[in-house]
Order: sequence, then structure tokens, then C-alpha cells
Amino acid sequence: MGSAITAGNVEKIPGLNMMGTSMSRIDYAPGGLNPPHLHPRASEAIFVLEGRLFVGFLTTTGKLISKHINKGDVFVFPRALLHFQQNPNNAPASVIAAFDSQNPGTQSVGQSLFGANPPIPDDLLAKAFGVEPQVIQKVKGKFPAKK
Amino acid sequence: MGSAITAGNVEKIPGLNMMGTSMSRIDYAPGGLNPPHLHPRASEAIFVLEGRLFVGFLTTTGKLISKHINKGDVFVFPRALLHFQQNPNNAPASVIAAFDSQNPGTQSVGQSLFGANPPIPDDLLAKAFGVEPQVIQKVKGKFPAKK
Amino acid sequence: MGSAITAGNVEKIPGLNMMGTSMSRIDYAPGGLNPPHLHPRASEAIFVLEGRLFVGFLTTTGKLISKHINKGDVFVFPRALLHFQQNPNNAPASVIAAFDSQNPGTQSVGQSLFGANPPIPDDLLAKAFGVEPQVIQKVKGKFPAKK
Amino acid sequence: MGSAITAGNVEKIPGLNMMGTSMSRIDYAPGGLNPPHLHPRASEAIFVLEGRLFVGFLTTTGKLISKHINKGDVFVFPRALLHFQQNPNNAPASVIAAFDSQNPGTQSVGQSLFGANPPIPDDLLAKAFGVEPQVIQKVKGKFPAKK
Amino acid sequence: MGSAITAGNVEKIPGLNMMGTSMSRIDYAPGGLNPPHLHPRASEAIFVLEGRLFVGFLTTTGKLISKHINKGDVFVFPRALLHFQQNPNNAPASVIAAFDSQNPGTQSVGQSLFGANPPIPDDLLAKAFGVEPQVIQKVKGKFPAKK
Amino acid sequence: MGSAITAGNVEKIPGLNMMGTSMSRIDYAPGGLNPPHLHPRASEAIFVLEGRLFVGFLTTTGKLISKHINKGDVFVFPRALLHFQQNPNNAPASVIAAFDSQNPGTQSVGQSLFGANPPIPDDLLAKAFGVEPQVIQKVKGKFPAKK
Repeated sequence: MGSAITAGNVEKIPGLNMMGTSMSRIDYAPGGLNPPHLHPRASEAIFVLEGRLFVGFLTTTGKLISKHINKGDVFVFPRALLHFQQNPNNAPASVIAAFDSQNPGTQSVGQSLFGANPPIPDDLLAKAFGVEPQVIQKVKGKFPAKK
Repeated sequence: MGSAITAGNVEKIPGLNMMGTSMSRIDYAPGGLNPPHLHPRASEAIFVLEGRLFVGFLTTTGKLISKHINKGDVFVFPRALLHFQQNPNNAPASVIAAFDSQNPGTQSVGQSLFGANPPIPDDLLAKAFGVEPQVIQKVKGKFPAKK
Repeated sequence: MGSAITAGNVEKIPGLNMMGTSMSRIDYAPGGLNPPHLHPRASEAIFVLEGRLFVGFLTTTGKLISKHINKGDVFVFPRALLHFQQNPNNAPASVIAAFDSQNPGTQSVGQSLFGANPPIPDDLLAKAFGVEPQVIQKVKGKFPAKK
Repeated sequence: MGSAITAGNVEKIPGLNMMGTSMSRIDYAPGGLNPPHLHPRASEAIFVLEGRLFVGFLTTTGKLISKHINKGDVFVFPRALLHFQQNPNNAPASVIAAFDSQNPGTQSVGQSLFGANPPIPDDLLAKAFGVEPQVIQKVKGKFPAKK
Repeated sequence: MGSAITAGNVEKIPGLNMMGTSMSRIDYAPGGLNPPHLHPRASEAIFVLEGRLFVGFLTTTGKLISKHINKGDVFVFPRALLHFQQNPNNAPASVIAAFDSQNPGTQSVGQSLFGANPPIPDDLLAKAFGVEPQVIQKVKGKFPAKK
Repeated sequence: MGSAITAGNVEKIPGLNMMGTSMSRIDYAPGGLNPPHLHPRASEAIFVLEGRLFVGFLTTTGKLISKHINKGDVFVFPRALLHFQQNPNNAPASVIAAFDSQNPGTQSVGQSLFGANPPIPDDLLAKAFGVEPQVIQKVKGKFPAKK
């Protein structure tokens, strides 16, 4: 989808164990998207290294808190809430993301629901999103299951 | 979608403040679904009061952990991970859900992403799920925004 | 004493490890009592499955907070405070108890003080409760030590 | 019962707020007893200033861990477990007690169960300890309720 | 000393309250030094935006863990341990620092000990560092007290 | 420097593991000093066993909070902030120190900065304290590195 994450968590850097913090770099192609996802064990603060981003998160009361941020800006996504970043420009963008956990974990909505292994039944997802099972099958085709 | 939640958290019962625990009752109509959602601040244990349920959660590595559970069974959904419950039978079902927080919070995927206020742009969601913007508009029609 | 606990903690269900939550079922015979006890590592919320119960806990300032609760009611006992449940009716009763720990632990006052292994000296307990050592010996007879 | 506690917690010393620690001094008359009690929010370490003490705590598996300790010795009572200190000598004794909470709280078994306000019913306590209600009434006479 | 900190903590950005994370930017002049200091409430992860730095922290067993890091590198200073960053080059350097607290706090050794308000007595510091009081007075001259 | 610490932490007493508390005894010769240091993982409460002490800690806003305390007095040093104790009298003094961690850790400023292994470069320390490198070398001579 036009975004690439270079993670620096405790799985990659064992010395982070017990540190309570980790960092990732995220690069966005022009128009790239880091699609809606959440980190179950951390809040995330991002600092824009270059470019411009449209970022947002969803509250438990149904509000979208969103903002356009530029190079040098900081934005924070609260722990375990759905959020996204989108590059609205024709130029690349990048951020440094910091987490208050050495092992924040990531659960991307599309990949988790439509690319689960084993798969979530089509009819369950069809009912959850109010669409025909054929639509679910089509979306599942975009998210091959990880082994 | 055929499920009704009677929440007993600190917003409803102020005496739960500082207790670190709360309970809800969930009733499922025949075929009812409690669609994919997460609680950012709590794990959830459920006890089946009556009926039969198909329940599951998704790990951060993309696995679906699911099970059919019956009256008297217990199942646990880990903190902040996406999960669901579905009533596969023609009879009603119900559970008691317990949380290790007096204020677990809930974020339902469908309502959060497609019924946000203000709305998430169609093109962003279309890209996130690999579908046409028209599909997004259709799904949004199923999830009126909360005010 | 007319109550039976079916525990569902991390010792019984290893998968609860790190979940922060566990559940037990408690069944009460007519007139049955779950005598004064505490859980050092958890608050406890109960949901009445059937019957009626007289429940209470003691605060650190010496107050008894008690209530008669019925089927469908919820009551919470704060972390590490002495509490009890009594079935005042001629019919059975049962609850689901949820804890905000996968390993809440239980310390029952009678069993702990009068059935300890090795035993607490009679004169110490006699002084603690203001009774003759013979009374302590009689009470100790009701609580055989666990090995 | 021959022991006097000079508490230094956050209620007495507001500056302890957020410090996570507090201290008390306990003085024991010859033969004095600090009867079975627990602190719901702290472990307790004691240092013997003078004299000799018989100290012990009860585990959740029913073991009594006890020891005679002398001037200069340290002993630790785990968080929220029942414990006691007894002066077995004809000379005074004293300790400094340290807690890993600015507000540890104290619940003494005898005072809590037999001096509660309002009182716990006699029959409930009689059943809990396997004695006649008359014994309970006698014990209650030793523990006037706090207002 | 040739380093400038642009803090982004909860005092500057109230929205960080309860987020558990904050960020700062640090700019280093050629040869600049962020002198030995500690953050009592957070670990710190830094990402080098530009330039090269000599960084280190001290363990509680007396070891210096140090490294030269370059643009794009990450280094972590454990919670509440003394640490420093020095720019060894003739070119400017800068980092993004992330903390696992919205309010990490900072205590710089030189400023705290030699610029305290009211001041720490000269003889105490002279004894602590094994130097003449005149040396202490001279060092104090470099650290005017904050009001 | 005229102070001796008898530590009672989890390294010395394995039974303290998970207890969340530990104790030390500190003895001060006449005029003795426990020089500026910090405990990264604990607040510290002290109780004066004998003698008189001048004690103080430094806040993150640059204030010195200090006091003369006598036998029987209690004083608390907040978690991870620099602090010291000095015996101003010609008689010995001693305290019991309690920590809200079984493993508080200690980082003494002089020993850490001037006796590190490997050493911190002279020029870095000279710049940090605004003195000539020769002064740093002299101070380093007072703090032999631990192996």
C-alpha cells in the first residue's frame, strides 16, 4: 500500500528487553498508506522526518481525531486504538515512531480480518460489514494469509 | 446484528472506580453476531450462560484462535486484540463477560472505520481494503455516525 | 460449609498466563456459606446465576458493606479485603466470580489461622480473639491442616 | 493486646503522596501481641530495634512461615497475606516497619470480623468458625465497633 | 555547553496526559555536549537525525556503556541511569529522543549539585568529590541557580 | 567517606524476590558522608536509629529539599532523584533505609562519573563541570574503577 516499516523492537534488538521503549522508521511512497491498525501494548508517538502526512485515530466514542502534519511535527496515537497515516503528496515522506513498550505488537485491520490463518468465515465478515459474501471473498484475495 | 450488550462498567456503576474489574452481559439472538471489536484497556473472560457460540480472536502474527463453546464454558480474549462472538444456533445465547479494568472501552471495527464522526475519507478506506470507493460508501451506509 | 468452588485460574488453565483475568464458579447449598476470606492479588466481581445471597466485605476502617443480591445481580469485593457470601434460602444458589488476576490466590480466615501447617500456637490465637485456649483447640479441630 | 502502632503513612504525612513508601514504629509490651492482620496494598519489612519477636505469616497454600527474630534482624511479610508479631519475652520490644505503599491499609482479623459496624450476624460467624453463637457473642464483646 | 533541547512533554503539550510517551528534539553544535544527566521517570530512545554522536550511560555496577552513533542509528538509555551525548565532529548533529513517560523529568548532575537553590554546602560537595572547597566554589560559578 | 552500607536487597536475600521491598542499614562515622547518589528503581525512607543527620534531595526543577533529622525521625527521598546524608556531629549516627523495590540499585555520582570502567574521557567531564582536565584527573584519582 505504499508504506514500509523498519521495526526496531525487542524481537530485532534483544538489548531492548525491559527498557520499556522501542522505535520504528516508516517510509511512505507518494500517496502511500499505512492502513488502519493498532498496537495492543503501546501508545505511539511519531516525528515527521520528511514530507507531509494525513494522520488520525479513532476514539472509543466514535470520533475521528485527524490532522495534516509536516516535517518536524509530532503526533501521538493512544494505546490500542485504531489509527492510520496517509501520504497525500507526490513526494516521499517518512517518520520516526516511538512506542512506550519494547514489544508493542501490531494488528492491521485488513490483514487480520481478511487474511487470518485459518480464515474467518465469509458469512461472519459479510454480516459484520453489511456486504455480500462475494465482496468478502474479493477483499480476502487482497490479503494472502501469513503462514 | 443480533447481539445486545448490557454494560456494567465504571460509567454505569461509579462504585467500580479503582476496583480494576467490571462485568457485562451479552445476549445473542439466533444467528446473532457481536462483530469484530477490541477493548483497549482489558482482557475479557466470558462464561456462557445459555446456548452455544462460535468465538475467536486474532493474534498479532495473523492467527485466528477460535472455538465453539457451550453453556458453562469459559473463553478469554487477550487485551486489545480483535475478537468476535457468533451464535450459530436457532436458539438464543447469552454470556457474562468480565474485564480486568473498570473501564475497558470498546472499539468496533465496522462502526469505528465506517461510522466515524467526522468520516474517514472514502479513498483512504478503499485503498486500505482494496475495494472501489462505491463499496466503501455502501458499507458506510450501514454504520450511521454517532453524534 | 455448604459452598463448592470450581476454580478457573492459571494453575488449572495454563493459557490464562499473562491474561490478567480468571473466573470461578461457586455453588451454594441451601444455607451454605463461603466463609470470610480474601484474595491477595485480585478484586472479585460476582454475577448471580441462580438463587439469592447475602454478601459483604469489610473496609480498612471497620465498616461492613453488605447486601442481599439476586439472580442477575453483580457485586464487587475490593482487592485483598475480607469478604463472604451466604445463601440465606432453602434453595441452591450459584455465582460466576471474575478476578482481575490470572492467579488471585485465596486465604480463608478460619482455615489459615486454625488449620495452619505447622499450627499457630494456641496461646497466640487465644490472646488474639480473647478466648480460652480450650476454645482455640476446639476450633482447630474443625480445620484439619493441609499437607 | 500489648502492642502500639505509630503509623507514618500518607494520611499522617501528606508529603508521602506518590512516594510509594511509608514507615511505622511498633512497640510491644512484654508478652505483647500484634494480632493476625493484613495490609491490602503493601508488603511489609520489619527491622527489630530492640527485644525479640516471634513473627509469622500464612501462605495461600496453608503453610505458616514463622521465625524468632532479634535486635538488628529483618523479616518480610508478603503483600496482603495474614501475619502477626508476638513478644515472647519479659522485656519490651520494638520494630520499624516499612511498606511499599504510602497507604498500605490494615485489616485486623479480630477487629474486622467481630467488631464490624454494622456487625456481621452471629450465626454467620458461628458457622464460619464452627462454634456456638454464644462464643461469637463473647468474642464480639472484646472488639467494640469503631464509629 | 553546545546542546539545545526542545522538549515535547506533558507540560508543553497537555494532550499527552495519560499517553505514556513524549518526544524531544536535541540539537548539538560542533563539539557540543549534553552533559551527564538522568530522567527519573523514563527510559530514553534516541534516533540520530544528522551528524555523529558519542553517547554513553553508566550501569549501577560501574560500567560505562558507550558507542559512536551516526545518522539513522538508534540508542537507548535505561530508566533513571546517568547518561550523556557528545558531538565529536565539526558539523552540527541532532536527534529525536523518545521517552516512555509523558513527564520524564530531567536531573542534570552539574546543574543539580552545583546550581541548587538553596545551594548544597561547599564542604559537603568538596568531600563528595575529594577536592578543595575552592574548586567547588569555582564550579558553582558555572551553574547559576534557577529561581 | 565515613559511611558504611549494609544492604539487604534481593541479591543478598533471595527470599525478597517479588516482595517489592528491601532494607539497608547505614552507619555514619562522626562527620561521615553518604555522598550524592540515586536509586533508579525505588524511593527510600530512612528512620534514624541514633545520632543526627543533615539530609537532602534535589528536585527536577533545581530545588534542594534538606533538613536536619534526629533519632526517631523519618525522611523520604523520591524515586531516582539525587540525594545525600551527612553526619554533622562528633558522634556516630545510623539509619534504617527502606526501599519500595527488592532491587533498588544505587548510582553514586562521584564513583559513577569519575570511577567508570572504562573511564569517561577527561575532556567530556571537564566540559560538563567547567573545569580544567587536570582537575578531572585529580578527582578520578579518588575513585578507582571497580572491575
